[in-house]
Amino acid sequence: MFERVKQARRHSRERVDLTQVLDQCRQLMTQRGEANSLVIASRAVELLSRLGDDGMARLFEVLARDFDPDPGDVLRRAEQYAVDRSPQNLIELGRVAEPPRQELFRRLNRTPGGTAVLVGMRARLLDRIKHDSGLIAVDADLQHLLTSWFNPGFLRLVQVDWRSPAALLERIIRHEAVHEIDGWNDLRRRLEPDRRCFAFFHPALPDEPLIFVEVALVPQMPDAIAPLLARDLPGEGIDPGRFKVAVFYSISNCQPGLRGVNLGNFLIKQVAEHLSREFPGLRTFCTLSPIPSFANWLLHLDAIEAPRLKPARRAHLSAVLAGLRERHASDAASLSKTVQAPKIVEADRQALTSLCAYYLSQLSASPSGDPVARFHLHNGARLERINFAADLSRKGLKQSLGLMVNYLYDLDQIETNHERFVDGQVSASRAVLGLL
Amino acid sequence: MFERVKQARRHSRERVDLTQVLDQCRQLMTQRGEANSLVIASRAVELLSRLGDDGMARLFEVLARDFDPDPGDVLRRAEQYAVDRSPQNLIELGRVAEPPRQELFRRLNRTPGGTAVLVGMRARLLDRIKHDSGLIAVDADLQHLLTSWFNPGFLRLVQVDWRSPAALLERIIRHEAVHEIDGWNDLRRRLEPDRRCFAFFHPALPDEPLIFVEVALVPQMPDAIAPLLARDLPGEGIDPGRFKVAVFYSISNCQPGLRGVNLGNFLIKQVAEHLSREFPGLRTFCTLSPIPSFANWLLHLDAIEAPRLKPARRAHLSAVLAGLRERHASDAASLSKTVQAPKIVEADRQALTSLCAYYLSQLSASPSGDPVARFHLHNGARLERINFAADLSRKGLKQSLGLMVNYLYDLDQIETNHERFVDGQVSASRAVLGLL
Amino acid sequence: MFERVKQARRHSRERVDLTQVLDQCRQLMTQRGEANSLVIASRAVELLSRLGDDGMARLFEVLARDFDPDPGDVLRRAEQYAVDRSPQNLIELGRVAEPPRQELFRRLNRTPGGTAVLVGMRARLLDRIKHDSGLIAVDADLQHLLTSWFNPGFLRLVQVDWRSPAALLERIIRHEAVHEIDGWNDLRRRLEPDRRCFAFFHPALPDEPLIFVEVALVPQMPDAIAPLLARDLPGEGIDPGRFKVAVFYSISNCQPGLRGVNLGNFLIKQVAEHLSREFPGLRTFCTLSPIPSFANWLLHLDAIEAPRLKPARRAHLSAVLAGLRERHASDAASLSKTVQAPKIVEADRQALTSLCAYYLSQLSASPSGDPVARFHLHNGARLERINFAADLSRKGLKQSLGLMVNYLYDLDQIETNHERFVDGQVSASRAVLGLL
Amino acid sequence: MFERVKQARRHSRERVDLTQVLDQCRQLMTQRGEANSLVIASRAVELLSRLGDDGMARLFEVLARDFDPDPGDVLRRAEQYAVDRSPQNLIELGRVAEPPRQELFRRLNRTPGGTAVLVGMRARLLDRIKHDSGLIAVDADLQHLLTSWFNPGFLRLVQVDWRSPAALLERIIRHEAVHEIDGWNDLRRRLEPDRRCFAFFHPALPDEPLIFVEVALVPQMPDAIAPLLARDLPGEGIDPGRFKVAVFYSISNCQPGLRGVNLGNFLIKQVAEHLSREFPGLRTFCTLSPIPSFANWLLHLDAIEAPRLKPARRAHLSAVLAGLRERHASDAASLSKTVQAPKIVEADRQALTSLCAYYLSQLSASPSGDPVARFHLHNGARLERINFAADLSRKGLKQSLGLMVNYLYDLDQIETNHERFVDGQVSASRAVLGLL
Repeated sequence: MFERVKQARRHSRERVDLTQVLDQCRQLMTQRGEANSLVIASRAVELLSRLGDDGMARLFEVLARDFDPDPGDVLRRAEQYAVDRSPQNLIELGRVAEPPRQELFRRLNRTPGGTAVLVGMRARLLDRIKHDSGLIAVDADLQHLLTSWFNPGFLRLVQVDWRSPAALLERIIRHEAVHEIDGWNDLRRRLEPDRRCFAFFHPALPDEPLIFVEVALVPQMPDAIAPLLARDLPGEGIDPGRFKVAVFYSISNCQPGLRGVNLGNFLIKQVAEHLSREFPGLRTFCTLSPIPSFANWLLHLDAIEAPRLKPARRAHLSAVLAGLRERHASDAASLSKTVQAPKIVEADRQALTSLCAYYLSQLSASPSGDPVARFHLHNGARLERINFAADLSRKGLKQSLGLMVNYLYDLDQIETNHERFVDGQVSASRAVLGLL
Repeated sequence: MFERVKQARRHSRERVDLTQVLDQCRQLMTQRGEANSLVIASRAVELLSRLGDDGMARLFEVLARDFDPDPGDVLRRAEQYAVDRSPQNLIELGRVAEPPRQELFRRLNRTPGGTAVLVGMRARLLDRIKHDSGLIAVDADLQHLLTSWFNPGFLRLVQVDWRSPAALLERIIRHEAVHEIDGWNDLRRRLEPDRRCFAFFHPALPDEPLIFVEVALVPQMPDAIAPLLARDLPGEGIDPGRFKVAVFYSISNCQPGLRGVNLGNFLIKQVAEHLSREFPGLRTFCTLSPIPSFANWLLHLDAIEAPRLKPARRAHLSAVLAGLRERHASDAASLSKTVQAPKIVEADRQALTSLCAYYLSQLSASPSGDPVARFHLHNGARLERINFAADLSRKGLKQSLGLMVNYLYDLDQIETNHERFVDGQVSASRAVLGLL
Repeated sequence: MFERVKQARRHSRERVDLTQVLDQCRQLMTQRGEANSLVIASRAVELLSRLGDDGMARLFEVLARDFDPDPGDVLRRAEQYAVDRSPQNLIELGRVAEPPRQELFRRLNRTPGGTAVLVGMRARLLDRIKHDSGLIAVDADLQHLLTSWFNPGFLRLVQVDWRSPAALLERIIRHEAVHEIDGWNDLRRRLEPDRRCFAFFHPALPDEPLIFVEVALVPQMPDAIAPLLARDLPGEGIDPGRFKVAVFYSISNCQPGLRGVNLGNFLIKQVAEHLSREFPGLRTFCTLSPIPSFANWLLHLDAIEAPRLKPARRAHLSAVLAGLRERHASDAASLSKTVQAPKIVEADRQALTSLCAYYLSQLSASPSGDPVARFHLHNGARLERINFAADLSRKGLKQSLGLMVNYLYDLDQIETNHERFVDGQVSASRAVLGLL
Repeated sequence: MFERVKQARRHSRERVDLTQVLDQCRQLMTQRGEANSLVIASRAVELLSRLGDDGMARLFEVLARDFDPDPGDVLRRAEQYAVDRSPQNLIELGRVAEPPRQELFRRLNRTPGGTAVLVGMRARLLDRIKHDSGLIAVDADLQHLLTSWFNPGFLRLVQVDWRSPAALLERIIRHEAVHEIDGWNDLRRRLEPDRRCFAFFHPALPDEPLIFVEVALVPQMPDAIAPLLARDLPGEGIDPGRFKVAVFYSISNCQPGLRGVNLGNFLIKQVAEHLSREFPGLRTFCTLSPIPSFANWLLHLDAIEAPRLKPARRAHLSAVLAGLRERHASDAASLSKTVQAPKIVEADRQALTSLCAYYLSQLSASPSGDPVARFHLHNGARLERINFAADLSRKGLKQSLGLMVNYLYDLDQIETNHERFVDGQVSASRAVLGLL
């Protein structure tokens, strides 16, 4: 509630000098800083929150340059450890090999507000790192610590509904990244009794959701997004007995400073467990997901290449691609239009669906695969169904050519699926494989 | 509430084999373990909680031997880093220099119940380490992580009073380590409106206090413990306007597995801040503390030696000691009796008080000093007053010869005091220094 | 959250017959109904909630006709009591003189949801009573019981802010009756740190606010409403040290069925007490209130008549009125315009202000006085200041000719002021009296 | 927590004079008192809480004498109402027929702490009424209002367990009236996972349980109390799947001032509903109850008389009684001993059981029947089984000759059973009827 006041105050405060910040940070690192860390750290945290962009950029440089381990020390200890693998030698090695900035971050983290400042610093660091790759080791340290601190054992799963604080709902509206929420009435529909929304919270950021997922409870696996987002309640009323499928239709991260700290995986699984207790009749947990890199991939596709694919299939897909090219000349606008045409050319429909099945099932295991596919498949989901003309929004057409995918979370299979994915193999349903 | 049920269940379960535990731990460390860590870790955690003492001892050995860094890898990366101090080289160095068991502990920590199992494991490790010093590096890793996870920014300060859950009060009774609580009625006195009790909690151990402090709110700095522990309320009733001094008369750790994770320092300071907001009339924050190593030190004292002390004072103290020896022949029993004698020999009183002042003010900065003194002085407190015949309980006489100390927490001075202590100098009041 | 589901279900349900309802009500009144009242009452409550308007109207008639005391019984018991004023006779008298429907309402009230149904019934009864004055005794019984049940000792004062449940905020938007709230952003301004909103809740209606008040914390007593409602925060930021005046600028009842159950009086006083604890620097508690009947009174005013007024003042006011009439011919539209004119005729300003002072200070003690004035004056407030051109909204001009009043709640004086008001005398400031 | 402080303060306060109390009460009754009731009532409530026993006794007399309706007014209004049954006449009648003290109590009830003071007053009134039956009309008024205010719709059902506040558990220990709780360890057993305890709370007495019930969850209907109260957990551990029967083995009222306000009925039914949701496997809800008036009845029994009983059965029972008399000469001590004897005379066992079945099944409908039987049978329970040698405690032997009863709450039958009981007929199992 006091955010705007605080903001007002912050704006009135003068910017601070980098020297002041560094002074506190260095004090914090001395032995004295240990017991006084609450006092010194709180001063440092206050100064850090007032540091301008230039000051922060220079701070990152100092952290990268002056707060890394001393190579001579490390080498000496490494040699001793190589000679004698004793616990003492190992402890000494650990002491000198860890970058001192890690201890700095840990001490900053002890004071109220410290965690929030560190998460904010990392967001600024990630912006900065685009221009200065020399900062990646600083980022590695921050990500390492944040991953340890934001581990799921410390998080609280909170159900978001129409009784939730308005301040939280406002953040949900702001952070929804997949299917934009158009104001409070639109949000309300997503919190009706046939919808669910869950968020993770950390004790050190009590008012800030970290990540949230939106779920639709429906009678069958959906093949289009519009009915899920429609503002009207189903005419026949809501009967929990008809809930057979839980659809994760949107997952959004709220904290840019936590990039790379995988929370989505744990969130989906905890929510699935929670829902299966609440509704024992639920049979299926799946997503309805975009394929954000599909259009771009298709337009730049040169040839069908998939070592695991049988030659006959490769040939078939190449022919399909050639036919599509002939009809649309690799033109995104033209492809987008075909999806929306009142009378779709059946050949186009089949071609797009097949190529999408190929893209997702054969290429997702590579780092350049579709990021949403990689997220769910790495979590242990199965590629279940490809839906044509499933998202006709501007964004859906542009990125995914209107296609959407259901990834299936079969709680008995996710472990196996995940292991196969790590080995480079995508788990897919027969229906999808049949499209190839 | 379900503890006894759980206990019953646990007892009925068969002990598990170390092989099973190690199997899960190794799976957890693979890349596959990453996304499935919730499942695998929860299996591992369940098995770990059923591992017998022998199994656990052998597990510790395996952790020490097989889960430490490879010396060859470390040396190679250290050499590369010495040649080129690049971020990439540093990241690689960090990767190989960190003992793999740290990542194992972090993954175990992700699952519900993981933190509790790790804290329990460390308690067993600390027991074991007495016999096997080869485990100190394993302990260093655990302490390192627990310090990071149990940082004060994640803790919740909870006021314990007569409205607190009985389950919590029961734990307070059990864990009180300084002045034993004799059942529910005794506890009740310590929770009356002129007393306070505060505990720290961690989100991953919601039912377990980590550490707690007991405070008495009184009109003046107390010189004996008995009136603070007496069961009767003051006859004149309780008037918050008369609270001038907050006395921290007992601090107890509840989790042996968190030894070395300094929470007491933060607890005292947060409580002092909390109380000064609640009672703006409070003038003084101090302790009434035992000197648990005093009797033992005195009986084995050879000579007065303190480089910082003026020769005249040293001579005086030597004479005092000699006089005491003459009267009591270094006999603890005889000394204890003199403290309680109806008519105390004034020379004894003076001698004990002076020698105590010498002990605490001159010798506390050394690691062999009195542990309670070292804790408070390191926190930035000042040695304020030595109280003769202040604790005539069996334990008080035996350990401290009946003496107690007030350490003063002057919030404006603690930073300076702490820094002086780190430099080897004890902050003491004029009254104490005058005793030398 | 389930409201819309419930609504959907309710709509699908068939209307019930009055006979069924009466059947349950009569069963509930038997001795058998006593112990089974939970079961029977819950059936009755369920049926009542499905009773259509016609059924309800006929139910009211039955309640008025068949559930009133038997005149013969009453007379007999009254005679016995007149002869012998014994406790037994009094108890018997009470038994027969109380309308049986009171017991019916009490039994309905015992079941979950019963209170809500009774409050709803009373709202429908109040609508119906306009056409059927024979129902006033039924209403008297309901109001009597509701006043007893909704006594302030059972209510919970809740601060409404941006952390409040969205479902509650939605109701605040809907029920605001004085200065309409234009959506969520407008509401947000009214919940910033320099604003307060408090509501009363009853345990039997946990999700329904009964009444709420909106408060502005400002440096001085305001003379216009627009700055209080403006969406922008004050440019200089918010500094709680500058809060000197708490302005109750809007009070709204949410439950039509609780008409006549005076909650506003208690709400204002509890909020004033609460705020003076939170901000010891607050000096003044006042309102900024409309005078909703002023325009109508002025247009129909025949002559200045106030027995307590000195003849000279009466004459002066009559002259003022005559002048105003001359300039505007009792024409509301013309008067409204004069208030808004860029250059106000000073004589108009003075005339309107004086006549308003006369209206409020001399005529409020009569039942036909301005209802808002009567509410605050009866609560013990003082008529403090009349503000010209203070509310230029359409409604403000139409009802109050743009004028607004500050009523002052001086907590030391409210008791005396209230007593004087009950005696027919309005407490007013010198400034207001000087206007006459 | 502040109780002892408050107590200390209260004791130091001087006693107040009745005149002061009456002065405030009279002010509260004036029209002025209406709006100022918060202030005046809070003064009155404060004074009432300091009124000594004599003052209170005289206050009751004044309330009985001066705060009752005026017989002349009542008669006049009764006559008017007899002539014209109009709503206006009815409202006027109600106004004069209601004792003014009811309005006084309602106004006192509006202020914080008012309800507690009224409940306390009634407790003192009930003590006083034993000596002064002239107060029964005052009591009728208080009971009438308290019944209305403590209706189940306003109460909160709270599960009491080992996580409950110690302050609440302390009250449970103090108020347990059926089977004494012997300290905290004994209480703990009653809160283990195979036991339940539920209490009702009222919003105006947030720290005071009104009534509570203790429940044992067991595999079959118990025939003795000792195993239920034994401190040991069942050896085989607790398996919720084995809970088939919920036994209400103790119900205790905590507020003597609420005597006659029937809460037990609602408590049992709400708890039964709650438990059947938590444990769908529960088949049976029953009690294990004492028969506190059995011994006394049996010793004074003259002859078997029950109009509904067939002559043959009457004759049989008379013979059984005669046999018992012959063996024990109506001697309670001798009867008690027989129950405990290592070898019970079978004839005694049969005789006592049959006579108990007769007592409970034939005589409970009369006001002089066993109070515990009347409570449960009136609630709609069925007399299910009579257990010989079921309570061998001192109290159990003395009052019930060691016998106990299971009353069965069959949720489908309680309505019918209750109605039959109101008609004078006790519902009993075949087994019990077979004993006659």
